[in-house]
Amino acid sequence: MARLVMKFGGTSVADMDRIAHVAVRVKREIDAGNQVAVVVSAMAGTTNQLVGWTNAAAKIPDRREYDVVVASGEQVTAGLLALALQNLGVPARSWMGWQLPIGTSDAHGSARILDIDAGLLEAGFASGEVAVIAGFQGVAPGGRISTLGRGGSDTSAVAIAAAIKADRCDIFTDVDGVYTTDPRIVAKARKLDKITYEEMLEMASLGAKVLQTRSVELAMVHNVRVQVLSSFEDLPGTLVVDEGEIVEQEVVSGIAYSKDEAKITLLRVADKPGVAASIFGPLADANVNVDMIVQNVSEDGTSTDMTFTVGRADLDRAASVISGLKAQLDYRQLLSDANVVKVSVIGVGMRSHAGVATRMFAALAEKGINIQVISTSEIKISVLIAADYTELAVRALHTAFGLDAD
Amino acid sequence: MARLVMKFGGTSVADMDRIAHVAVRVKREIDAGNQVAVVVSAMAGTTNQLVGWTNAAAKIPDRREYDVVVASGEQVTAGLLALALQNLGVPARSWMGWQLPIGTSDAHGSARILDIDAGLLEAGFASGEVAVIAGFQGVAPGGRISTLGRGGSDTSAVAIAAAIKADRCDIFTDVDGVYTTDPRIVAKARKLDKITYEEMLEMASLGAKVLQTRSVELAMVHNVRVQVLSSFEDLPGTLVVDEGEIVEQEVVSGIAYSKDEAKITLLRVADKPGVAASIFGPLADANVNVDMIVQNVSEDGTSTDMTFTVGRADLDRAASVISGLKAQLDYRQLLSDANVVKVSVIGVGMRSHAGVATRMFAALAEKGINIQVISTSEIKISVLIAADYTELAVRALHTAFGLDAD
Repeated sequence: MARLVMKFGGTSVADMDRIAHVAVRVKREIDAGNQVAVVVSAMAGTTNQLVGWTNAAAKIPDRREYDVVVASGEQVTAGLLALALQNLGVPARSWMGWQLPIGTSDAHGSARILDIDAGLLEAGFASGEVAVIAGFQGVAPGGRISTLGRGGSDTSAVAIAAAIKADRCDIFTDVDGVYTTDPRIVAKARKLDKITYEEMLEMASLGAKVLQTRSVELAMVHNVRVQVLSSFEDLPGTLVVDEGEIVEQEVVSGIAYSKDEAKITLLRVADKPGVAASIFGPLADANVNVDMIVQNVSEDGTSTDMTFTVGRADLDRAASVISGLKAQLDYRQLLSDANVVKVSVIGVGMRSHAGVATRMFAALAEKGINIQVISTSEIKISVLIAADYTELAVRALHTAFGLDAD
Repeated sequence: MARLVMKFGGTSVADMDRIAHVAVRVKREIDAGNQVAVVVSAMAGTTNQLVGWTNAAAKIPDRREYDVVVASGEQVTAGLLALALQNLGVPARSWMGWQLPIGTSDAHGSARILDIDAGLLEAGFASGEVAVIAGFQGVAPGGRISTLGRGGSDTSAVAIAAAIKADRCDIFTDVDGVYTTDPRIVAKARKLDKITYEEMLEMASLGAKVLQTRSVELAMVHNVRVQVLSSFEDLPGTLVVDEGEIVEQEVVSGIAYSKDEAKITLLRVADKPGVAASIFGPLADANVNVDMIVQNVSEDGTSTDMTFTVGRADLDRAASVISGLKAQLDYRQLLSDANVVKVSVIGVGMRSHAGVATRMFAALAEKGINIQVISTSEIKISVLIAADYTELAVRALHTAFGLDAD
């Protein structure tokens, strides 16, 4: 007997047929003698509609009321799935965030889970009942409904798995696992049987849309075994596990890319102490998240060029913040470019293997691809290139690191 | 300064334009210095869709999960209206049934309100905040979401008005008040300025769809002044009040009709003690609500004919229950007729005026309309007639009792 959390995303519960299918899938685990807590998202499209209404209702929607409105989507699917399970003879009941409760911070709209009371879930398991938990939501101090931000149901599932000490947290989605890269770009992309938390985290934050970043962090901290698998096919997926569980680690496990990038270059900024702080302080105050930063060595000893990247949606705001600082920064010109992409090579194996950067840069050079900015961490190397070269770069790197399927 | 409850039904909050309009209407009361609690239904059509899903999910939906699913509709409109009010600069927040709480019985799907804690609402009034309360829902013992049954938002509104001792409970709907009869049938129907609780109760239970019956009962018990008015036009509606408030009471205040009627006649039932109980006991056990009952005097001293009416949707079930009792009841034949309608004359004034029945029967006879069954109470006389004569009968009675507008 195992204890499982099974999480189903929006496309997996998109209509009544899909919900009935999910109930059959859950029943199979019950029939196999397992204890199951299910976490559900809203039906595909519902959350977008609800968010649209909140934006129609108010120019700047109060996040607390936003949460009341959007949390209703998961409430509906939780009730419906409980009904569908009962219809198959499986004892089941729905749980809203406030009922367990799932306590969160009061950062409405993007709240963090602080504490999950597993008492009622344990009582349910003891009586053989499947818990169907509304994902994405909790209750803030003071008793108001909170939500975790888009994709938050993954985080709900992992947090619940940690709270009930589940043997595994299965994330059912519309892809059948984590791939070495985007199969839409590289036909020879391979599904990974296992991947480490660290690699998954890099992949998630570097543009792979499989799991919400925060859910991976949480799984890593609480050592929750997560499986990403398809709700449409009946195949094993990709296990996200601790590094120790992976016997033969490859040097590089995947190639990720992110199109949500924009580049700003400041030409001839005064090269003096404190200049970086006077650029990035105001950007942070304006809630602009800066990713890669490169500062060239000063040529003349008095001025330098500074390049950094921001999310594409933040480009105009970032440029306007910087323009407001022109007198103070004394730069010559601001150049911006939304036509860039970040391509990353990821793998915990590169910690112990020299030469990964060399191989990466050589593979790109061979295809005539110019590298604009480079950023590295212990287990990834990212480069910024012109967007036109995205597919070419990803394919070249996938081959260069021996990831192509036979 | 007055304290008001304003309740808006599904058509009044059907889309974002309507919700914005409702916010303007509420703001006007706030600007006039009033304290306001708003009660909202789900957007028109939403509840039907949610109910449809529960029926698709399970053959016999668990009422507790049914409640979880359908209560979400009011959650959405409560949040959206709070946003729309804030957008106009009016401090507002939404309240779910479980947050106040609105305590109900555990009869999920048709729960009764047991207790409303007005403490949080009073605190909100003190701070100048509009409470936007999700109608139709509450919380059952044990903390599960409950709903009050279709049309329950009227009941929510009246119960909240009683709990906060509101000066008036305004029910905004798609008609502009209570009429002497259905204006679609009688062009000369008049809107009533005032109507007594008792009359409104009879009208509600006799087919007038303006207010839910239970909400009128509750208003009568707690002496809540209720106004029915249009959310589309800006006109005074009809006040539902205590009899003492109506100075000049007319003999008859309205003509109601109900098409949701079906008639069953048992020919030659054994005429012996206990026969009525052996018919209506099993019907009650099968949840068939019996309305009018007529038993003729026995012709031969050994058998009699028995006629009664049931809701049209219950006709088949009622007939099948009775057929199962054939051996025991020893009747000769069961006749059923779904092609009947109940027409009623209502007025507290008829208590002190003889001759209402005579005038009613004469008016119908004059048009050649045959009366099949008669049932009376202190303030109403109902007759069952063939459905084809509905409009003719209603118009004849409206004229006969002097209700036609000039």
